[in-house]
Amino acid sequence: MNENSYSLGIDIGGTNTVFGLVSNNGLVLKKKSIKTESDKGPIHLFDNLFKQVEAWNSESDETYVLKNIGIGVPNGNFYTGMVIDPPNLGIGWNRLDLVSLIKKYQSLPVKITNDANAAAIGEKHYGAAKNMKDVVIITLGTGLGSGIIVNDSLLYGYDGFAGELGHIIVDPNGRMCGNGRRGPLEMYVSAKGVKYTINEYIEKYPDNDFLNKIKNYGYSVKELDAAYDDGVEIIKEIYEFTGKMLGIGLAQAATILSPEAFIFYGGLSNAKHRILDYAKKYMDENLLSFQKGKIKILLSQLPDGEAGILGSTCLHKVKL
Amino acid sequence: MNENSYSLGIDIGGTNTVFGLVSNNGLVLKKKSIKTESDKGPIHLFDNLFKQVEAWNSESDETYVLKNIGIGVPNGNFYTGMVIDPPNLGIGWNRLDLVSLIKKYQSLPVKITNDANAAAIGEKHYGAAKNMKDVVIITLGTGLGSGIIVNDSLLYGYDGFAGELGHIIVDPNGRMCGNGRRGPLEMYVSAKGVKYTINEYIEKYPDNDFLNKIKNYGYSVKELDAAYDDGVEIIKEIYEFTGKMLGIGLAQAATILSPEAFIFYGGLSNAKHRILDYAKKYMDENLLSFQKGKIKILLSQLPDGEAGILGSTCLHKVKL
Repeated sequence: MNENSYSLGIDIGGTNTVFGLVSNNGLVLKKKSIKTESDKGPIHLFDNLFKQVEAWNSESDETYVLKNIGIGVPNGNFYTGMVIDPPNLGIGWNRLDLVSLIKKYQSLPVKITNDANAAAIGEKHYGAAKNMKDVVIITLGTGLGSGIIVNDSLLYGYDGFAGELGHIIVDPNGRMCGNGRRGPLEMYVSAKGVKYTINEYIEKYPDNDFLNKIKNYGYSVKELDAAYDDGVEIIKEIYEFTGKMLGIGLAQAATILSPEAFIFYGGLSNAKHRILDYAKKYMDENLLSFQKGKIKILLSQLPDGEAGILGSTCLHKVKL
Repeated sequence: MNENSYSLGIDIGGTNTVFGLVSNNGLVLKKKSIKTESDKGPIHLFDNLFKQVEAWNSESDETYVLKNIGIGVPNGNFYTGMVIDPPNLGIGWNRLDLVSLIKKYQSLPVKITNDANAAAIGEKHYGAAKNMKDVVIITLGTGLGSGIIVNDSLLYGYDGFAGELGHIIVDPNGRMCGNGRRGPLEMYVSAKGVKYTINEYIEKYPDNDFLNKIKNYGYSVKELDAAYDDGVEIIKEIYEFTGKMLGIGLAQAATILSPEAFIFYGGLSNAKHRILDYAKKYMDENLLSFQKGKIKILLSQLPDGEAGILGSTCLHKVKL
């Protein structure tokens, strides 16, 4: 029986929470995804999560000794260890001292950061951003999060809240978000945003067969992708609109940051070229001449869901 | 007769070029402002400029030995030494190897950067940004330039063209700029932008006495400021509109960068609180709740025009 020490990486999303045991050299030994069920509060989630971590120990003939815990969570603040008003989690998460809570489960060093920052660190250390000094990693999940790397360091800003690309305004007269602001990128480009768009289309085209089908039976991103590949015109329109809003937002960000690439990660990014080709086209249309055609749009190079857990365990060993 | 070595700092603007001799500890010994007359090309400007630098030597009983030259210039690229398509300079500047040109006048080390970056470095080393690690310096001149400091370093981005706050879009249906993009911040908040606004108001209110006066006789920023202080309603409206667009732009930038402060510099910033109070108000209205009221709006702490020349001479001695 071997005894080895591992980090526990946790990536908390609006819908799912992925967590795993990570070796010192970035190998993911065990990994599981559970429902966040954020309306039931953080204790519900972590009771479930740590039960599974214990089970891993009894399931295996190897003993997993945890040495530390890293967490990526929406609006997680690296400096304070707090989660403040995360947009896509329930009310129990609104002013949460997450580091203290986790220490009640495991008396170990705990570090947290914004979920998108965690994914960015993972991508920077093990994935598509490995040799890039200026790069933006965007998580397309329930919402839209971003981790920005500038000059080889994560951009935290003065208060640890920098890098909120999901909240930049792409249409000043557009959709109202929960924060009372009109037209933020996240309201168009995220699972939530696409749902909003589909509902608008359902209202606008009540006789469309495909829209009626998904109105009655729901849809998965995979089904939308399949419809796109089959040439269903209305889904092409919806994807082009989504890609266009994304492109406009990327151009705004690029005007300030001028990154080498935007790297995409998370559920909606599985639509791949179907949305990202439009994003590239409209980004280039909205860039200044000397930036046009130069900024890459890439997909995460890490296995599904691993950027976040890998990155959160890196919080204990890297200079950010 | 003493022989001392100095840096020559040059700050090239769309209207004026300020240059000066700077001692190693940041003392500006000699300073002069001349018209850029950019339509006459760069050689016309530098012939004039170096004639004056020579004159300083003969005027004084001290000999000024130049050891190096630093230049801040719109769209100047620190890495390549080139100026590419600067928005507010004439055609002779569109693809200019500035470092090579300057070396024909003086065979000395020459470094260049974006004019706003130069001002940011000056402000960071000698001015209001001295103890700030995350701060944005904005130059309100003919156009709007910005130098962004992130984690104590200047933000250059992958290609040296980062930090173009003047080009972020604040109204997607707004004024068309020279680059064919609608509604960039610079088209509202700069000498050029305010002129545009005033012309729109003149068209909209042909019977307004004050507008007729400035239509026939022109205006300076000082005269507008005086009218504002006298309570001229139409100028209040124009300043509020200008401050509002600025505030919207600052909120976009803050969503990405979360700086400690925005620091203002350049001609239009002499309007001070008259525009900046509105900017603060509208910035706060457009920020996410956890950023509201936290980001400072400050004025440059350096004598008029010195941030740029001080900062450009720093290019030879600081880690950026």
